[in-house]
Amino acid sequence: MTDPTGLPRIRLRPGADSRFKRGHNWVYSNEIEMDDAAKALPAGSMVQLLRSDKKELGVGTFNPHTLIAYRGFSRSGSRPVDGKLIKDRLTRARALREALFGEPHYRLIHGDADGLPGLVIDRFADTVVVQTATAGMDQLLDQVIVALEKLISPSTIVISNDGKFRNLEHLDRYSKVVKGGANGAIEVRENDLTFYADPLNGQKSGWFFDQRRNRAFVSGLAKGRNAVDLYSYAGGFGITAAAAGATNVLMIDRSERALDLARKAAETNGLASACQFSATEVFGALERFQEGKRRFGLVIADPPAFIKTKKDVATGIKGYKKLARLSATAVEPQGFLFIASCSHNMHEDRFIEETSRGIGQAGRSPRLIYRSGAGPDHPVHPFMPESEYLKALVYQLD
Amino acid sequence: MTDPTGLPRIRLRPGADSRFKRGHNWVYSNEIEMDDAAKALPAGSMVQLLRSDKKELGVGTFNPHTLIAYRGFSRSGSRPVDGKLIKDRLTRARALREALFGEPHYRLIHGDADGLPGLVIDRFADTVVVQTATAGMDQLLDQVIVALEKLISPSTIVISNDGKFRNLEHLDRYSKVVKGGANGAIEVRENDLTFYADPLNGQKSGWFFDQRRNRAFVSGLAKGRNAVDLYSYAGGFGITAAAAGATNVLMIDRSERALDLARKAAETNGLASACQFSATEVFGALERFQEGKRRFGLVIADPPAFIKTKKDVATGIKGYKKLARLSATAVEPQGFLFIASCSHNMHEDRFIEETSRGIGQAGRSPRLIYRSGAGPDHPVHPFMPESEYLKALVYQLD
Repeated sequence: MTDPTGLPRIRLRPGADSRFKRGHNWVYSNEIEMDDAAKALPAGSMVQLLRSDKKELGVGTFNPHTLIAYRGFSRSGSRPVDGKLIKDRLTRARALREALFGEPHYRLIHGDADGLPGLVIDRFADTVVVQTATAGMDQLLDQVIVALEKLISPSTIVISNDGKFRNLEHLDRYSKVVKGGANGAIEVRENDLTFYADPLNGQKSGWFFDQRRNRAFVSGLAKGRNAVDLYSYAGGFGITAAAAGATNVLMIDRSERALDLARKAAETNGLASACQFSATEVFGALERFQEGKRRFGLVIADPPAFIKTKKDVATGIKGYKKLARLSATAVEPQGFLFIASCSHNMHEDRFIEETSRGIGQAGRSPRLIYRSGAGPDHPVHPFMPESEYLKALVYQLD
Repeated sequence: MTDPTGLPRIRLRPGADSRFKRGHNWVYSNEIEMDDAAKALPAGSMVQLLRSDKKELGVGTFNPHTLIAYRGFSRSGSRPVDGKLIKDRLTRARALREALFGEPHYRLIHGDADGLPGLVIDRFADTVVVQTATAGMDQLLDQVIVALEKLISPSTIVISNDGKFRNLEHLDRYSKVVKGGANGAIEVRENDLTFYADPLNGQKSGWFFDQRRNRAFVSGLAKGRNAVDLYSYAGGFGITAAAAGATNVLMIDRSERALDLARKAAETNGLASACQFSATEVFGALERFQEGKRRFGLVIADPPAFIKTKKDVATGIKGYKKLARLSATAVEPQGFLFIASCSHNMHEDRFIEETSRGIGQAGRSPRLIYRSGAGPDHPVHPFMPESEYLKALVYQLD
């Protein structure tokens, strides 16, 4: 089927439109009439979506080879997905971030909730780091870069496409600089402090803006306390706590390269004397604290995702509970424990339950004083629970 | 049964200890061996709790006439609940608040999570407002006041016991000043602004500290926008938005008395020229905005609980959805909608779903940029999901 504007058309199976109708942005492959024509479409094709009775539902990208087959860009069949639409959505997304933050350091585009499924862009002033997760967005990448040039004219553009999620769409993994030079660390401004990220060699874009508000809250508890930042990465939590008056902050990460970035940030912010760094595994370090009865007024545990796919759920849950138990043991009486999960497949209710039980196993009584998600430059598409991933909790322990 | 320390003893039915064992603080009447001796205990008696095999589980208050029959104060059978325990818990609670806030204006005690079931204390510098919700806590009220005197020595102590929740425990409802004078409005400091509360004539303690952090976040979106604060009460959101640079704020509340407090706060903070006030019903006002096509860059909807008991759930959910729909109609393109629910029986997931659907019905597409709960001086007991009640969301609407 072809519509008058020339886009191929795919059709939903009868009765398979309920989720999309409720506002969700994706269609799964088993909801689509996968006839020979649909199967033959190149991965990432722009298509028009039809209901089984041929009613036009919108325009989006299609991949016949993946579980998530269709990702919607527009619910109007008549609006083409072109450079103008991309530029309009970038403009709208930038306006939101400019309303939120005083400095141009933020996640500029966060996928579906910003109307650009499969696209993530982090902005560090004149450097932007682009990640594409789908064949459909790969097809639009050139137009995204053109729109970025028009809108921001960055001095440096990095494509950071080395994430495992690209395997799901059978896409190659690579990183490259498409404009300017990106040799080593770039500056990141967050909560009025300077940090360093390395987009070409770091995790994802090199920085996790999603924890910005959580870092600010946690730092408010740091004054006069000694703190440990587990999985410190480039020092986001630890340096913020030191700047807020922690007497001492120990940052632990197994990556020396990440700790070098944290060290540099400690120097730049004049906090080096309050900061220590240890390149080691977190669970081992926590066991040594327990043996040595070493405790902290503030323990920060922001681990990588313990649950990457649904088959990891049982193991991952045990991991979070164990992390909560060992971390609780390292918290002083009346001290604070920050613990986060960035696993999609961990619901907040369950995360609270399991971490509380872990704390209980350590013989400590918790009260929950803070729960939050990712910062506002990581908007959630409210009809897509999948687009919510970060759970951040702060407990005080008796 | 009587234990060596003289406390009456109540016993769980066989197998009825699982929730309590998991860390929950309450025991329901159908979980207790309600023999004649138990039934004859005066409402609010301090008792020792035993498992069915007579293992000692702790000490707490007991009311044989209510669904929630036992509320735990201690899991150690040997520690008496006396003035020292109360003072210790007040001291610990105050230390947490002093770590959190720069000024002595906060919820000092928030029930079970602060180890004092049935007790709520709000502090406004030298004025404290005490609420007791159970027969058990009523019995301890004199000791609470003694402890407050030792710890804070307030100039004014108000008992604000006019809430409907006291009916559940068959307690009389009253308000009185037990120390000092409380004539009219007292000052409240929050987010570096001055507000006014009237503990004897207002709702609950006269002020809702639970929204402090949410008010701060919302005010960050206010600059250069016109705003409407629905259910403004004494101006908590509206004045904070005006101080953060809203071009104009319309506060709507059906209570002239509440609006008088908001007017006084606008004057004190030098914001009167940016504030308007309207004593009217919110739904009617929203319908008039719709008719007149009047829109705002920021709409704040912080209604009273639409769901007070489980039987209100269906009606209440419709109410939240309708509020979301009508409020969304009053939001400018790319503007913001804050919406909250303080109903215990509304889970956050459902609240997001229903408000998003309401927004969708208004023909608007939402992205969720913020979700949070009550501020950290309202801690949640993590083994008691009932102790979580506030859900606060911010959407941006296309």
